[in-house]
Amino acid sequence: VRVHAITNAAAQVFTANLLLATGATPSLTIAADEVAAFTERAEALLINLGTLDEERRAAIPRAIATARSQRKLWVLDPVFVDASPPRLDFAKLCLTYGPTILRCNAGEFMALAEEDASPDHVRAFARGQGCVVALTGPTDIVSDGERIIAIYNGHPLMTRVTAMGCAATALLAAFSALHDDALEAAAAALLVTGIAGEIAAEQAKGPGSFQPTFLDTLFALDPVTLTARGRHS
Amino acid sequence: VRVHAITNAAAQVFTANLLLATGATPSLTIAADEVAAFTERAEALLINLGTLDEERRAAIPRAIATARSQRKLWVLDPVFVDASPPRLDFAKLCLTYGPTILRCNAGEFMALAEEDASPDHVRAFARGQGCVVALTGPTDIVSDGERIIAIYNGHPLMTRVTAMGCAATALLAAFSALHDDALEAAAAALLVTGIAGEIAAEQAKGPGSFQPTFLDTLFALDPVTLTARGRHS
Amino acid sequence: VRVHAITNAAAQVFTANLLLATGATPSLTIAADEVAAFTERAEALLINLGTLDEERRAAIPRAIATARSQRKLWVLDPVFVDASPPRLDFAKLCLTYGPTILRCNAGEFMALAEEDASPDHVRAFARGQGCVVALTGPTDIVSDGERIIAIYNGHPLMTRVTAMGCAATALLAAFSALHDDALEAAAAALLVTGIAGEIAAEQAKGPGSFQPTFLDTLFALDPVTLTARGRHS
Repeated sequence: VRVHAITNAAAQVFTANLLLATGATPSLTIAADEVAAFTERAEALLINLGTLDEERRAAIPRAIATARSQRKLWVLDPVFVDASPPRLDFAKLCLTYGPTILRCNAGEFMALAEEDASPDHVRAFARGQGCVVALTGPTDIVSDGERIIAIYNGHPLMTRVTAMGCAATALLAAFSALHDDALEAAAAALLVTGIAGEIAAEQAKGPGSFQPTFLDTLFALDPVTLTARGRHS
Repeated sequence: VRVHAITNAAAQVFTANLLLATGATPSLTIAADEVAAFTERAEALLINLGTLDEERRAAIPRAIATARSQRKLWVLDPVFVDASPPRLDFAKLCLTYGPTILRCNAGEFMALAEEDASPDHVRAFARGQGCVVALTGPTDIVSDGERIIAIYNGHPLMTRVTAMGCAATALLAAFSALHDDALEAAAAALLVTGIAGEIAAEQAKGPGSFQPTFLDTLFALDPVTLTARGRHS
Repeated sequence: VRVHAITNAAAQVFTANLLLATGATPSLTIAADEVAAFTERAEALLINLGTLDEERRAAIPRAIATARSQRKLWVLDPVFVDASPPRLDFAKLCLTYGPTILRCNAGEFMALAEEDASPDHVRAFARGQGCVVALTGPTDIVSDGERIIAIYNGHPLMTRVTAMGCAATALLAAFSALHDDALEAAAAALLVTGIAGEIAAEQAKGPGSFQPTFLDTLFALDPVTLTARGRHS
């Protein structure tokens, strides 16, 4: 499955390596006059708003327009919208184009939804936006506006490595392209990420060795381990 | 040996680390008004067309012009030209400026040469362009239009790490600056890459640990290992 | 402690991971219309002049202006000013805005100060500029124009990994935000970097495994190790 990722400068390499480790094929260009061609040949599009420079600002609407015209799924990751007013405006504009999945943390959710990140608010926001919301944190909450799934896997060391959440969003995009139900796809991607993070944290000596160990773990992850380790509602 | 690399966002760090591991000195700026100064002080120039944004589009012709005016060798890596029509046009323009070596995979070769990537077609294209063509894949084919060398080293795990091919192209550039015969330099660089990839794949647990292990292996590679492991025509 | 880093494309990921490993919170955007917001919420600003493209050129003066208006400390890393005349001009302009700390190597110092990098010249330049100068090399020299500290820790393998110096500068920024005395903060950051580098070099097999091992070491570093290992005047 091909994923075109317009993502931030700190996340590009890890996003590509995570997708490759799971068997997906990434492309990463942010050039405004090329993103349409790359989006057309991909099965899913990832829009991440980190390091939102001029080139990315110009490319993102074109990539989204291509995805929409082909009824292709796309995932929005509004990184740090709680820190930058112009980025918040841009994220709200992106939301009006109807992402399949919105992946964010509690601070970003609060900036977008103007509500705290309780499960009820997540579900209400998902219903209002007509998309799946995947809220990550110590407990992940995924909702499509009706159903709601909580995922308890993960490890604190995951917050000590840059772009872990951004790269996980790429996995959401890849899984969504392989599964008709976006809610289940999002929940499965977060479950896989959390379980791989736990296993890697057990084996790593710190945040440096955690990252290669995480990719090795993802690469080798099997259904039996997933079933045995998974903790979700 | 100094290599100035105008390369894509996913490849910059790994390219720099690969060059440093082999004893070369990288520089990476893509700023249009700086690439002439960095190209002047380098012994070789690498042009990689991944993530071809405005800044890179402006910088690449200036860097090539500097290299040409100083009769300095330069290597072209036309990443993903098979995926983006404007990039293919740009790559064809670059080819008219006479790269010393063209490094590409089969899909990129087919887009540029409009022929399938058979050894005969590789040789014919090299002759027509007046450059060395280094085609990488399960078997690497290198030709200067007359001679042809096949290299059988390598490992499938190399395709599960982003920018492995892009970083290998930087090694071609470094080796070419140290050796008068561009064909032999290109073949030696691909042989070293393939052997280091095999050794690293034997030691790594997956694509995550493969990358640091690959750099450690390159750093420690000795002539005896190269001679014992090398498989080529 | 939050550090906003406008740094080069090869250093962004490692800078973020180094800050996270030490407990600091990085942000990395280079977008000209966002750097003011990110600088406002950070306790320190890092300006690194590598890969100085148009976007960074536009963003850097805005970020510095924000830091100055809030009397916030900021650190300048004039990467490769000895290689690019337009970058040297830009660095000199930055210096007129009064960085708290200037971190550079001998070649960069010579380009800026037009003197060789002796301890006396470092002290004189620090006095003239009214900032702390942190000169890194086999021996690090830190001076505020009066006092001078020499640090002897470190390992040659640190020069075989890209962006090691750039990432260390981020640690200077973080430490400076936590300690009133910029000279002592800069010296402590270089001491920590050098000691972690020595320990990682003892454990690593080469430059590839050095980088994750370095981050693991930083993450676990304790005062007893620092006291036992530190070698400085």
